Amino acid sequence: MRSPEELRALAESYLGDLALTPELHGQAASVRYALAGGKRVRAVICLATAEAAGVDAEVALPAAASLELVHAFSLVHDDLPALDNDAERRGRASVWAEYGEATAVLAGDALLAEAFRLALSYPTPEVGRELAQATLGMIGGQYLDITGSTPDEVTLHKLKTGCLFSASVGVALWVAGIPERDQSPWRAFGDELGLLFQIVDDILDADGYLLSHGEDGARRLADEAATRARDRLAEVPADTTKLVDIVDGLATRTS
Amino acid sequence: MRSPEELRALAESYLGDLALTPELHGQAASVRYALAGGKRVRAVICLATAEAAGVDAEVALPAAASLELVHAFSLVHDDLPALDNDAERRGRASVWAEYGEATAVLAGDALLAEAFRLALSYPTPEVGRELAQATLGMIGGQYLDITGSTPDEVTLHKLKTGCLFSASVGVALWVAGIPERDQSPWRAFGDELGLLFQIVDDILDADGYLLSHGEDGARRLADEAATRARDRLAEVPADTTKLVDIVDGLATRTS
Repeated sequence: MRSPEELRALAESYLGDLALTPELHGQAASVRYALAGGKRVRAVICLATAEAAGVDAEVALPAAASLELVHAFSLVHDDLPALDNDAERRGRASVWAEYGEATAVLAGDALLAEAFRLALSYPTPEVGRELAQATLGMIGGQYLDITGSTPDEVTLHKLKTGCLFSASVGVALWVAGIPERDQSPWRAFGDELGLLFQIVDDILDADGYLLSHGEDGARRLADEAATRARDRLAEVPADTTKLVDIVDGLATRTS
Repeated sequence: MRSPEELRALAESYLGDLALTPELHGQAASVRYALAGGKRVRAVICLATAEAAGVDAEVALPAAASLELVHAFSLVHDDLPALDNDAERRGRASVWAEYGEATAVLAGDALLAEAFRLALSYPTPEVGRELAQATLGMIGGQYLDITGSTPDEVTLHKLKTGCLFSASVGVALWVAGIPERDQSPWRAFGDELGLLFQIVDDILDADGYLLSHGEDGARRLADEAATRARDRLAEVPADTTKLVDIVDGLATRTS
């Protein structure tokens, strides 16, 4: 089993070489631009889960990439002037600032459609189904966020961030052929990962959970989520040491 | 086998009763708004193809609905101020004009993701694959259109309109379990249908093919496409009388 860093490099290489649909014509440039530079956290979780569940990470690469494409799709559309109006992303111009709004709308659309194309390269539809559910949850979360109509912080983050983290574990389970009745402890782990990621993100960005719980309070919530994630992994009947490494990495990351 | 009008009513009823993903929360209202009022041409083609290919139209309803959701998604995003800037659609305010730009971006996204959820309700991934390919072609066509970088009119319409018409036949073939080796004549029919629809659309809207070929020239092109579509159907080893009715209806429509 490979380290998170090795899996990250594997995902990065796969995404860099990804053949886009030729019919996209010139639209492909903005799609590639949008895909560059992420941390690939979701892909790494997927690949490590696949290896822990007993299949080669290479087999899970299309599924892992589909998660990164959905993540990129959401960033491209969220950055639009009508939504978060962010002209910068990952230290450079966001897609709309670089290519214009019209191309950015289409870039997000293309990323989402390409994500499904990848998810549907498997012989069964489960990976695609998992991706569709997660995407719909994310969209619902973004709606609650921009309209200020969210019932509470936990619901919001569960939708906006948690859905795709849970799916990062979920798609790997389908790729590995883990039957639904055996997926519960894995999925409980995935749910905690999303929360852990969000809380640490808020601590690093000085918003969200940091504002609502203070620095010590937010750090305590993160540590508790990390502990629960490790506890859930201990219930999984497999060698999950690399997934524990991911939990530790997410809990202690500084960027 | 049912008439195109009966199949249209069937699709309309299914779309009206469609259960959206609960996680969309308030976003669902704009999705329903966007779905109202179409002619359901793509759904009817899909349902009639399914019946001709030997399965109940009811079995093809999720696939037929997925086509209408992708069509609605493309209209919602194309209408945005940054793209075609259309404040009106189907005789009332377009989605962005009614709900604001941010919600309209998300409504398009949600329609696309819900389309895949429907397409993936089948036990095999082929319907979803066909939908992803068609969607990517449409996006590429829209890019060529808004950037004025299209090589020629035929390529543009093949992507913008033709892809989803071809998929309307294609998804029905997968639903009916027609093996790939037997799909060619059906698919050749679908390709002609998209062209026929586009030319007649341009004649009715006084643009595109009407401008480039004149009224008589455009009408002749439409008649030739209709003839080729009927010829292709004659090669299909099935009772395709209702599909001939659809060709006749598309060739002679006045709205």
